[in-house]
Amino acid sequence: MLHQPIFDIAELCVKKGIREAVLCPGSRCAPLTLAFTRNKGIAARTFSDERSAGFVGLGMAQQTQRPVVLICTSGSAAYNFAPAVAEAFFSETPLIILTADRPVEWVAQHDGQTIYQSEIFGKHVKRSYLLPQDYEHPDSVWAINRMVNEAINLSVQEPRGPVHINAPFREPLYPSKGEPTVYSDGIRVLNDQPSDFTPSDADKKLIAELWPSFRKVLLVVGQQDHLPGISRQLQMLSERFGIPVAADIISNLEPGDHIIHHSDLFLGQATDSLKLTLQPDLLITFGKSLVSKNLKVFLRKHAPKNHWHVQPCGIAADTFRNLTHVFHTRPEHFISLLMGLPQHDTFDSQKQVNFRNLWSVEERRAQRVIDEFFPQEQLCELEVVKVVMDHLPAGSNLHLANSMSVRYANYIGPRPGVNVFANRGTSGIDGCSSTAVGHAIASTRMNILITGDVAFFYDRNAFWHNYAVSNLRVLLLNNHGGLIFNMIDGPAAQPEAAEYFITRQPLNASKLCEEFGFEHLKLDSKRKLKNLIKDFLGEGDGVKVLEVETDLHLNRAIFDNLKQKIKTTYEK
Amino acid sequence: MLHQPIFDIAELCVKKGIREAVLCPGSRCAPLTLAFTRNKGIAARTFSDERSAGFVGLGMAQQTQRPVVLICTSGSAAYNFAPAVAEAFFSETPLIILTADRPVEWVAQHDGQTIYQSEIFGKHVKRSYLLPQDYEHPDSVWAINRMVNEAINLSVQEPRGPVHINAPFREPLYPSKGEPTVYSDGIRVLNDQPSDFTPSDADKKLIAELWPSFRKVLLVVGQQDHLPGISRQLQMLSERFGIPVAADIISNLEPGDHIIHHSDLFLGQATDSLKLTLQPDLLITFGKSLVSKNLKVFLRKHAPKNHWHVQPCGIAADTFRNLTHVFHTRPEHFISLLMGLPQHDTFDSQKQVNFRNLWSVEERRAQRVIDEFFPQEQLCELEVVKVVMDHLPAGSNLHLANSMSVRYANYIGPRPGVNVFANRGTSGIDGCSSTAVGHAIASTRMNILITGDVAFFYDRNAFWHNYAVSNLRVLLLNNHGGLIFNMIDGPAAQPEAAEYFITRQPLNASKLCEEFGFEHLKLDSKRKLKNLIKDFLGEGDGVKVLEVETDLHLNRAIFDNLKQKIKTTYEK
Repeated sequence: MLHQPIFDIAELCVKKGIREAVLCPGSRCAPLTLAFTRNKGIAARTFSDERSAGFVGLGMAQQTQRPVVLICTSGSAAYNFAPAVAEAFFSETPLIILTADRPVEWVAQHDGQTIYQSEIFGKHVKRSYLLPQDYEHPDSVWAINRMVNEAINLSVQEPRGPVHINAPFREPLYPSKGEPTVYSDGIRVLNDQPSDFTPSDADKKLIAELWPSFRKVLLVVGQQDHLPGISRQLQMLSERFGIPVAADIISNLEPGDHIIHHSDLFLGQATDSLKLTLQPDLLITFGKSLVSKNLKVFLRKHAPKNHWHVQPCGIAADTFRNLTHVFHTRPEHFISLLMGLPQHDTFDSQKQVNFRNLWSVEERRAQRVIDEFFPQEQLCELEVVKVVMDHLPAGSNLHLANSMSVRYANYIGPRPGVNVFANRGTSGIDGCSSTAVGHAIASTRMNILITGDVAFFYDRNAFWHNYAVSNLRVLLLNNHGGLIFNMIDGPAAQPEAAEYFITRQPLNASKLCEEFGFEHLKLDSKRKLKNLIKDFLGEGDGVKVLEVETDLHLNRAIFDNLKQKIKTTYEK
Repeated sequence: MLHQPIFDIAELCVKKGIREAVLCPGSRCAPLTLAFTRNKGIAARTFSDERSAGFVGLGMAQQTQRPVVLICTSGSAAYNFAPAVAEAFFSETPLIILTADRPVEWVAQHDGQTIYQSEIFGKHVKRSYLLPQDYEHPDSVWAINRMVNEAINLSVQEPRGPVHINAPFREPLYPSKGEPTVYSDGIRVLNDQPSDFTPSDADKKLIAELWPSFRKVLLVVGQQDHLPGISRQLQMLSERFGIPVAADIISNLEPGDHIIHHSDLFLGQATDSLKLTLQPDLLITFGKSLVSKNLKVFLRKHAPKNHWHVQPCGIAADTFRNLTHVFHTRPEHFISLLMGLPQHDTFDSQKQVNFRNLWSVEERRAQRVIDEFFPQEQLCELEVVKVVMDHLPAGSNLHLANSMSVRYANYIGPRPGVNVFANRGTSGIDGCSSTAVGHAIASTRMNILITGDVAFFYDRNAFWHNYAVSNLRVLLLNNHGGLIFNMIDGPAAQPEAAEYFITRQPLNASKLCEEFGFEHLKLDSKRKLKNLIKDFLGEGDGVKVLEVETDLHLNRAIFDNLKQKIKTTYEK
């Protein structure tokens, strides 16, 4: 077979543990399409819109914790993958992007569907490969196997991420009719044995030296996947050393004592003198970005003496502008290491506990205000989000679209046993639904997506495919525009707000639901909420959409009210 | 005002003749949004999906023959412009892409909506600029003005194309409420006076030397905008020197004697000996790519002694692999130059006429077969395309989506007074509808889009905006899949064809039309065609969609029949 070395890529992927491929239609990519669809070790599915397909693949990779292969044809198809590739890069999700290309000598020669594909994703992939297009010399066959091995290995090395393999193909692209297709024997697998990232002796020594000088230690967890056991470990650490742990909903920590989930709410209202008392002298972080803007601002303004960041590999972001040490280990190892350190004497231990209590008091204050704030008289998005979250089944996945949905859920806080996902690598609205579809296809868990109308209609091609999805529920917060631009003061104050920032849009989901055969539940009164949620989260043959249409000014007013209520508690 | 130098960009654009800006919602881009929406010299419109917005801008630029400004916020928004940017690059359409960014020091610091935006479009822009983000030093203010002047000038220099300006902004992004916004006085305009690209004396000398040695001159015109007078000029050239002119529908030549529009059909069926007689000894080309694959293959296989390509500037594509001379002038100048050359003596002139007649005979043969082929008994796409094209009002714009629609129209041939547009820079399906929407918004002409179902649903966000469009008609050829993959033999012969190549999709346009308030005309029998077309092309308040659902195997069978009919004429 002409493209045998290409054909063997699919088998190599299987041997490397890859189980899912997302294909986009095309002819130039035929050698790849046939290689992957004919391989029984891989589930190959096809999606027509490459932008959506890219995010579907991203969701599958997040859900399965394995790299997913994306395949597209030559031309601008690859560029439609780019938003998902950028999200994968910053969210550290492994993707193997295989783009078919014309032979390199045909680029920019006015031949169809040919663009500059080589290195097209710029800095948003860990590496770019260009496969040989002629296979006569054995070095070429070796190089193809070596590059694909290397690409897969690189995608799962920390920090994980996307890799790009551009594959130019000569014609003929298709085998003759009925030609048998077999994979070569003895395809070489290059095994890349990962490090444990246990702390080094030098790390242990340095930490033992520095540790005794700190009395106010704050631990902040950015976005990360659910790590079994980490919440319990953090509880124990907090108990032992009086360390408050601030986390966002996307940090995937279980609710619990000393875990601070409402810092965004109370830090936005707290007085300057209170904030001074909350200032740590040591900040320890792991995970990626935070949703909570007020926590970020607080930590930038109230710099600790030391900021230690924990991540296995790579250059750390200096999000709070006061990073002093990066420890290249895993959070669970690092916490164990800290647990082995001696406690301070009683007096200093009490100081630590006092510091933790200061944070806990604020957390309880915010939680109490929220508890008292609901139910509201009028139907508003924040309360609908809260009620839906209160009913989430344990073991389900919660997907939070940008921009307001993830913020709402962050104000409400985590629910036990619920894994939370959000495209916070780039914080785009371009693939939130498609990512949730990828999760739903790749697992049997229930997937609940909370999204606004702009993100929902932007990415509506998420639903344009031929695969049955019965484990996806969409809570659609339809305020007919980009509510975020009404929530922040800058744009809302401009006369151009409605047309150019909020961008009013008239659609609701009814036609879309009819078109795709989704069950459409309309929530138009508070009375119906409880019953509808039961139906919404219950069994069903397909996707269900629970749509609530509310006024964006009302939503802002209610949210301002909540903030005011918190503020008032500081004025008493 | 903090961002005064940025604010002045809008005024500079107006002074440079720019009249249209396409905005996408965001907050980081507020300084640009306010600058452009508050400028009365510019029509600023907003589109929520950046991918679609990019193509809308492309269409506007093509229609107005002026650069269009695209504006988006930071993060993956810019990447969603990329498919349109690549199309603009290869179709040589001027776009000024202004992407707002966070300050450069915040890239990759886990702050929201921040990716590597600098140089994000790679080789698909003519140049990338990074604006200063601090304006204290006068050099920064000068640099912003200089870069924007330069970018606009570059976008309209031949070959025209997109330029990228990345603009990082510090906060505050918004003026205070009610703060008056004015443009600076005396904003400097850098006028770039274009060359005429008249042929040089050296060109004239060389051509005069070479010209007498050729007897079989073929002129081939690739994709180009409608140039008034060029068709008449070519007729005269053809008359004087016996030169057949082969063109595609996207070449925008008027129908006429000696203009060969059906080469794709007859060259696909002609015998080898006939093809030898059609081989030119001199090939002259201008314009960009060709749709006609058989013409490309013929010219690659039957190389002329000389191939002269005419384009004002830049490196020419060597599409046929036998390019010998590039003349840096405009086609109209070049034809005038040729017209001034002496005719051969009678004997050699007759040879030339004989050569032209060989081509004309084949053109008439193909035209006759087409004329006799219709009407067909069954409703098929090719005939619907033909009948719609027969009814196109003079002065209208015809938009041809990839992949089958542009091929169908190319088989049928051009109609008088109709301007033809197609995204043949990258030949993608990702923005065909949006491009047509851009044309419709930017002109009062009637715009007729012919599209298949995959391209139509892929780019459905083309219709998700708040602007009234009454001059757009969509002929939707719905065969529920990618027909192109059934038309070419390779994929059609594979058992995977239906799922992975054709990618069957079940939608029709009825829900979409209800959702957007479009008039939906269903063509389900041949009888209704004439009446429906009258309604379809007639006046109306909004978009009308004429949808014909046909079976893809029937369409292939009918097309194979047409080819067979042409083949048979060679066997008699």
